Amino acid sequence: MNFEIEQKIFMEHLNSVIKGISNKNLIPILNCIKMDLTEEGLYLLSTNNDIAIKSFISADKIKNIKSTGTIVVYGKYLYEIIRKLPDKIIKIEEVFEDKINIYTDNSSFYLNCNKVEDFPTLNLEESSQPIKLSIKSLKNIINQTIFATAISEERPVLTGINFYIKDNILKCVATDSYRLASKVIELNQKIDNETNIIIPSKNIQELNKLLSDEEDFVELHVFSSYVIFKFSDIIFMSRLIQGTYPNATALIPTEFMLKTKVKKVDFYNSIDRASLLANEYEKHTIKLELKGQEITISSNIQEIGKVEEKIIIEKDNDIDIVISFSAKYMLEALKAMDDEFIVIHFNGDLNPIVITNQNDNNLIQLILPIRTY
Amino acid sequence: MNFEIEQKIFMEHLNSVIKGISNKNLIPILNCIKMDLTEEGLYLLSTNNDIAIKSFISADKIKNIKSTGTIVVYGKYLYEIIRKLPDKIIKIEEVFEDKINIYTDNSSFYLNCNKVEDFPTLNLEESSQPIKLSIKSLKNIINQTIFATAISEERPVLTGINFYIKDNILKCVATDSYRLASKVIELNQKIDNETNIIIPSKNIQELNKLLSDEEDFVELHVFSSYVIFKFSDIIFMSRLIQGTYPNATALIPTEFMLKTKVKKVDFYNSIDRASLLANEYEKHTIKLELKGQEITISSNIQEIGKVEEKIIIEKDNDIDIVISFSAKYMLEALKAMDDEFIVIHFNGDLNPIVITNQNDNNLIQLILPIRTY
Repeated sequence: MNFEIEQKIFMEHLNSVIKGISNKNLIPILNCIKMDLTEEGLYLLSTNNDIAIKSFISADKIKNIKSTGTIVVYGKYLYEIIRKLPDKIIKIEEVFEDKINIYTDNSSFYLNCNKVEDFPTLNLEESSQPIKLSIKSLKNIINQTIFATAISEERPVLTGINFYIKDNILKCVATDSYRLASKVIELNQKIDNETNIIIPSKNIQELNKLLSDEEDFVELHVFSSYVIFKFSDIIFMSRLIQGTYPNATALIPTEFMLKTKVKKVDFYNSIDRASLLANEYEKHTIKLELKGQEITISSNIQEIGKVEEKIIIEKDNDIDIVISFSAKYMLEALKAMDDEFIVIHFNGDLNPIVITNQNDNNLIQLILPIRTY
Repeated sequence: MNFEIEQKIFMEHLNSVIKGISNKNLIPILNCIKMDLTEEGLYLLSTNNDIAIKSFISADKIKNIKSTGTIVVYGKYLYEIIRKLPDKIIKIEEVFEDKINIYTDNSSFYLNCNKVEDFPTLNLEESSQPIKLSIKSLKNIINQTIFATAISEERPVLTGINFYIKDNILKCVATDSYRLASKVIELNQKIDNETNIIIPSKNIQELNKLLSDEEDFVELHVFSSYVIFKFSDIIFMSRLIQGTYPNATALIPTEFMLKTKVKKVDFYNSIDRASLLANEYEKHTIKLELKGQEITISSNIQEIGKVEEKIIIEKDNDIDIVISFSAKYMLEALKAMDDEFIVIHFNGDLNPIVITNQNDNNLIQLILPIRTY
């Protein structure tokens, strides 16, 4: 391996690949980046065995490929060295004794290499029928559902987001069994095989950091134990959570006693302020009272004090409601909504609250009430 | 107490006073803010018994003082409530049972108050001869020395910055006994009494966060056990460290075997890159070799690799040097320098390195070498 490359171009790709390793992995080889230089270009690959990130720099972006080859180096050192070198041409050359020399006019680094054959063998082939959607849609799906996944490992399937695809409909669901977020989008293609997978939310978070150019498209390649996201010059692989995802749709009521319309920002700010005096040891519980055309939100911490917030709303009938719920869950759900106005659906004091945008039902946030007596 | 005030004005002052409390203090009253409303205006005061911050909002900035009074409330709650209220007029009123009502049209908070007599009594009087300097100078002094104070409590006097004032000269010194930073500035006034105090560096850090308007002036009022900084509408008090500060000036050599001139940014970047392969368990030691008109900086970590950096320099004679030192200390010292070019002074392989700006000797950074054999 012997080539020259602009610092900026190399850095751009290392910025993606470095996210695939944690530095703290006890298996040294999983802290490494594999560099594979071919006539086509340079492939960079990292993996922690749970995710893998592959980035490609085509030969036309590389200055001078003198000889091809494959090496494996510590990712953290490679990344920091390239990052701190000046914005000029960097020369990289494999030298005797399994070392790599990274140098410019004034700087010369020798890094020890690991054995290429010790690096995990990954199958990053493509599937026959990828699912194509815009990066913008994928980012929306993630940001509007991921907060509702479970943190506790008690029921592993709930620590992921469920991607369910049938015909031309993609439905994503996340739930920790106290609240649920569901987003439906229509694809521009019809998928032959029903797909039902669970992707770990921590892996999705890593993927989300790599998604930037919203104009572009992403391809999903689904396999039995893993999924591949392909976009720009990047291939992102995540293992899947095995198990059966609960049929969440059945939990979402379709008929409601009462619907109210409220300006999202006003409702959010009132809940946010009321949450200041909601006890964190009691799930940040706050109380909502709906009477006439007014919502009163209240909470208190005995030793500190109490708060009362009022908002005027529109509602579709005369029913009054008194209901308690977690302010934290409500704030996270509200943040995910797109519209200026939202619709809050009630089915009495002890039944789930459902929130939708004013103009469509593709995004649903459901929150279970908390019994306070 | 009963008054109205713009959210923005109140928040601006709370932003300062909140820095005086930590929220985690085991003595509840030290998590509180004392509000003292008089005909002149509103005084806000916080203290953790180590520092105190007092801020003043004059009556002309308050909308409507209906009645004066003094109350003590939990600082964190007061701060968060005001922060989250809309940018409008806020009404604050003391009500029955030692409560305070903070309200706007839609929000109403009741906060329990603590007993005013439980709040620490502080003497924040002014001294007869304050020392006056620009906020800009004070910020410079702090930022150019504070990193050299000791973290270890082994020798308590070294955990502070020494302020020594005689006639019209202020000299500030910080040292952890491995490196030393010293800054001298000329005052516009002559001080009658020699002043020699040690201010805890963690308190200076808090003060530094409050110093923003560089055009303004700050007054130092020195007492036997504490010091007061007065600026804008703020009074900042810090306790002093008792004890005798070592005579650091005696440690700084005045004659040198060799002086070299180098562009600061080049030298900094080379050390920064070399530090990547300097072992953190060996104080980030790197080696500097000066031969002819060239400096070579090198370091290595056995298992990882090695690095060599070269820089062309100007020097005043033919002496060559080989010296090892902490890259971390050198980087911190270099960051503090003002000029584009710096002068590095050597007295052989085992004597301190001294760094000054090219154009003056008011700022001195001294670093002890590390024996590597």
